Parts: sequence; C-alpha cells; structure tokens
Amino acid sequence: MKMKTMYWKDGKLTLLDQTKLPHEVTYVECETYNEVIDAIKTMKVRGAPAIGVSAAFAMALAENAGENLEKAARDVKAARPTAVNLFWAVDRVMAAVKAGVSAMDEAQKMYQEDMETNRAIGRYGSEVIDDGDTILTHCNAGALACVDYGTALGVVRGARDAGKNIKVICDETRPVLQGARLSVFEMQQEKIPVRLIVDGAAGHMMQTGKVDKVVIGADRVAKGGVANKIGSLMVALAAKRFNVPFYVAAPKSTFDYENSIYDIEIEERDPSEVLYVGKCSLAPEGTEVENPAFDVVPSDLITGIITEDGIVGPL
Amino acid sequence: MKMKTMYWKDGKLTLLDQTKLPHEVTYVECETYNEVIDAIKTMKVRGAPAIGVSAAFAMALAENAGENLEKAARDVKAARPTAVNLFWAVDRVMAAVKAGVSAMDEAQKMYQEDMETNRAIGRYGSEVIDDGDTILTHCNAGALACVDYGTALGVVRGARDAGKNIKVICDETRPVLQGARLSVFEMQQEKIPVRLIVDGAAGHMMQTGKVDKVVIGADRVAKGGVANKIGSLMVALAAKRFNVPFYVAAPKSTFDYENSIYDIEIEERDPSEVLYVGKCSLAPEGTEVENPAFDVVPSDLITGIITEDGIVGPL
Repeated sequence: MKMKTMYWKDGKLTLLDQTKLPHEVTYVECETYNEVIDAIKTMKVRGAPAIGVSAAFAMALAENAGENLEKAARDVKAARPTAVNLFWAVDRVMAAVKAGVSAMDEAQKMYQEDMETNRAIGRYGSEVIDDGDTILTHCNAGALACVDYGTALGVVRGARDAGKNIKVICDETRPVLQGARLSVFEMQQEKIPVRLIVDGAAGHMMQTGKVDKVVIGADRVAKGGVANKIGSLMVALAAKRFNVPFYVAAPKSTFDYENSIYDIEIEERDPSEVLYVGKCSLAPEGTEVENPAFDVVPSDLITGIITEDGIVGPL
Repeated sequence: MKMKTMYWKDGKLTLLDQTKLPHEVTYVECETYNEVIDAIKTMKVRGAPAIGVSAAFAMALAENAGENLEKAARDVKAARPTAVNLFWAVDRVMAAVKAGVSAMDEAQKMYQEDMETNRAIGRYGSEVIDDGDTILTHCNAGALACVDYGTALGVVRGARDAGKNIKVICDETRPVLQGARLSVFEMQQEKIPVRLIVDGAAGHMMQTGKVDKVVIGADRVAKGGVANKIGSLMVALAAKRFNVPFYVAAPKSTFDYENSIYDIEIEERDPSEVLYVGKCSLAPEGTEVENPAFDVVPSDLITGIITEDGIVGPL
C-alpha cells in the first residue's frame, strides 16, 4: 500500500481517515487518547488488528500526558464492544507498564509485530490458495484493517507474492461499505483483478461456480465460532451449501479462549449508517432500523483459521 | 394503498414511477407500447405480476395504434428476461386476440384478476401466519409489485385482515433497494410495524430468534426451485439453517412448467445500480461489477408456495 493506515510521529498518532476513502485520502492526528477513542467509535480506524494497535497508542498518549492509566484503560476498552483485540491490546500495555516497560515501547512493539504477523498469515494462507483461484472476501480485512498487508487480504497478497494468479470478488458490505470502499481500493492499488458485487449476490456467485475460496477476517474467535462483520454468517452458509472452502484469517490476538461466541456483545450501531449513504437517503422518513455490526459464524461452517502460527481449527 | 401502481385512463397507461419512491410520488404516462417497454426496462414498473399486467396494456396500446401485434409481442417480451409473467401475459393477450377478443379487453380482465389473485394469496397465506409473528421479507413483492395488495406483502395484509398482530422486517435489497424504498413504505402506509435491516443482517436476525416466518415473492417458479431477486438464496439458506419456515407467495402466472430453474436466463443489469445510490458514488473509479438481478432458491429450501389456489410444493 502506498498509504499507511497509521503511524506515530512527533508525539502524535496519525490515522488514515477510512470514512472518507476511496474518494478522499485524508489523515486525522490524535494528540490525546480520547481523540483515538473517538476515531475508533466513528470508524475512522477500524478492523480488529488496527483497533488493537491504535488502542495501544492511545495508552501511550495517555502515558505521555500523565493521565491515570487505569482510567484510560477503562475508557479505551469501552470504545467498541465486539473486537477482542481492543481488550487484548489494552491489557497487554497495562501488563507491560506493570512490568516496568513504557506504554509507548509496548505500542511500538505491537505495531511491528502486527506487520510480521500479517506476513506470516499471508504465507500460511497462500498454501491453501491454488493458482487461478477466485477468492471472495467480505468487508475489509486488508492492510487498512491492520498496520499493513492485512489478514484476509494478507492471504491474497501472500498468494500473489508466491507467484499465484488470483482474482478477488469483494461484496460491498453494507451498511458501511468496507468491501466497496476499502477492499476494492486495496486490490486496485495492488493491481489484483477485482470485481464488486452486492452482499446478496455472494450466494449466486458460489451457486454458479464463480468462487473457489472464501477468506474473511475476524473480530473475535471464541468457543463455538467466529464473530465478524454482519453478513459473514450468510456468506458462510452459502459456502457450506456449495462446497466452497471457507477460511478465516486472524492473528492470535483475536482469539478469546474464555468465552462462548454466543455470549459476547454484538454491537448495535447508529441507524443512520443504514438510512443514508453520504447525504443520500435510502428509506422513508421515520424508518425504524436494526443495525447489528457483527454476526456469528458457527464452527461447523469454518474450514480453517489461518493464523501467524499456521492453520488451526475453530475453538 | 392510497396510491395505485398503475391505471388505464383516456387511452393511456399511467404508472407510478417506482424509481422515485419513497421520496417522490410521481407518475409516468405511456401512450405507446414502446414507452411501456422502457418503463419495464428502467424499473419504473417492476415486480413480476405488475410487469405482466403492464405488458398486457402495452399490447393494448399497440392494438389501439394499429401496430403489428406479432412484432409488438416480440418487443415487449424482450424487455426483461427472467420474470415469466411477461411472456405469460403477452402470450395470453395474443391468444385472446386470435380468439377474437381485443387486447384491451384481455388486459382489463388481467388487471381485475391480479387484484383477486392477490387477495386469494393473502387468504391462503394468512393460514400459515400465527398471531404475534415477525415476518421477514426480501425485496418488494407488495402492492407496488402488482396492481395492488401484493403477493408476499399480500400474505402480510391477509394476516392483518384476519385479525393477527404481526410485525415485518424488510431487508433493504441492494442494489435497487426495493426493500428499503418500497416495502418499508407500504408497511408504513398500512401502519404495520416494520423494521429495516441491511441484507447481510437477515441471517443474524434468524440466528438470534427474531424471525418467525420468511415470505418472499417470485419472478419465476420452475422445475427445481424459484428465481427471485438477488439475495433470496442467502435468505433461504439462513432460514433452513435456523428452522424458520420459508414461503414463496406467487400467482400461478409465475409458474413455468416447462423449464428447469437452472436453465433460465438470469438478467445481468447495469453496473451503475451497484456503483451509485442516487448521485452518491460508493466505490473507487473504474470498479468492475457483476450485477445479477436474480438468483435461484432450490426446492429443498422452500416450505411451500402460496398461490391463489392454495399452498403447493415446489415444481
């Protein structure tokens, strides 16, 4: 990627504003941890790994400002409820601080690790991708969801880097359109052939034999399955029906070994995400909306989980 | 419905322009059969039964203008490829003409029949709806897809008219948003409680027990299954997984007893439907799109087909 999802410079965390992509490439500078929390809540930065690393930098900002770190930790963790990387990152920074390491050093370390992790995911994932495959992905588990390279799109990049000719189908991923806006954009930048479909067309593409593999990311891997962007479940059901291998690409930081996937909180987001695209209104005045941000893919629908340590089964 | 989907007056077919709903209620007047063809192609009128009846009136306009009816029949049939009602309606008008009935009289008869058919579908469908049910529907198989009352939403109206308290969940139905724009609008007009979700959320709603029945329409019922608006297949797969009864509401004019559902043409529509909502651009410049308008729901996913003659199994 020519542009960076985030970087640390001059005591500030700079984030690519993903709400403006693909039409505008603009950055937001966060000088306080609350500005990072706002960026996470408003999805200027999104994607489980990117949320994790930016949360670590939020803790570094709190440390630099002499804030109460326990309070900052609680505040940062409350930004969004579903992606476990957020809690993992904050807990890891707090443990480091208790062990005498600065929050800043730990955040920088996690930033570097994220890049290495994704390349390892790409190498392992490449092994299950065949030359000539068309890979369908949902949402954006790409460079933009991480520091760079990506998890699901890291597998795509890994296959390409291993010399395989591959094509990608992105579904648009309503309501926030991460597929249309972000994944298509990344693939175009990489010059990997990519086509866009509406979310409802994924089943038809598999029914008509146009998809060889599905690879998606995860916001949390827990007992019984995987939580990921709303719509993942329906893609997984279609993959199962039409015998298309269904892979989840996720770093170990996304694994929650304690909870059942059915016990975690599924974030409900603002109705305006569904009712508007930009300033264009899609529905009548006064329309009531349900807008769950994630759903659960049960383990029996998952062929394998591609991690930085290799491909594993669901928890 | 306070507004009519279509009516015949003063030698013209007037159609409610469904591309403008819900924000503008405007009508287009068709004085030639080619104007009706254009309205069908551009989806100013859409929905299998409404396409059928407007095609019959197109033949009446051709007749009034002294056009060659054989040529008109070929032209009208070529407007859209998937909804079988289009072919059924034109063939029926041509058979009537050959038997000495005017195209106009036959079109008027079909207009009346459509209203009676939908009320019969509503009565039969009501029998499988329980008091308190939440019904999920995809796309718009409502009054706006017919002369009035609707097929899938005819079942909703039938249940309401039978005194049952019901709620409706509409998925938005990308790319043309018939769910968000038309089905929500119809339910609001009827004061039936309705909530809107994105297409990807239908599985989650069933997984979390929020849907009691699914009722959709059909563009064609044929051997092996049903063709309906893109995304129907994924809704059906979720319904099967979570044991939610899945009904198709369709008049017999939608039945194709000759063909396998896998042999029929699935219309591919313009990429702009996916790339834009109004003037709002959703994806990067130069994005390639696949935009199939329909998909196929295999028979094993269908609980029953609600027709004007009762509930039957798939072909």
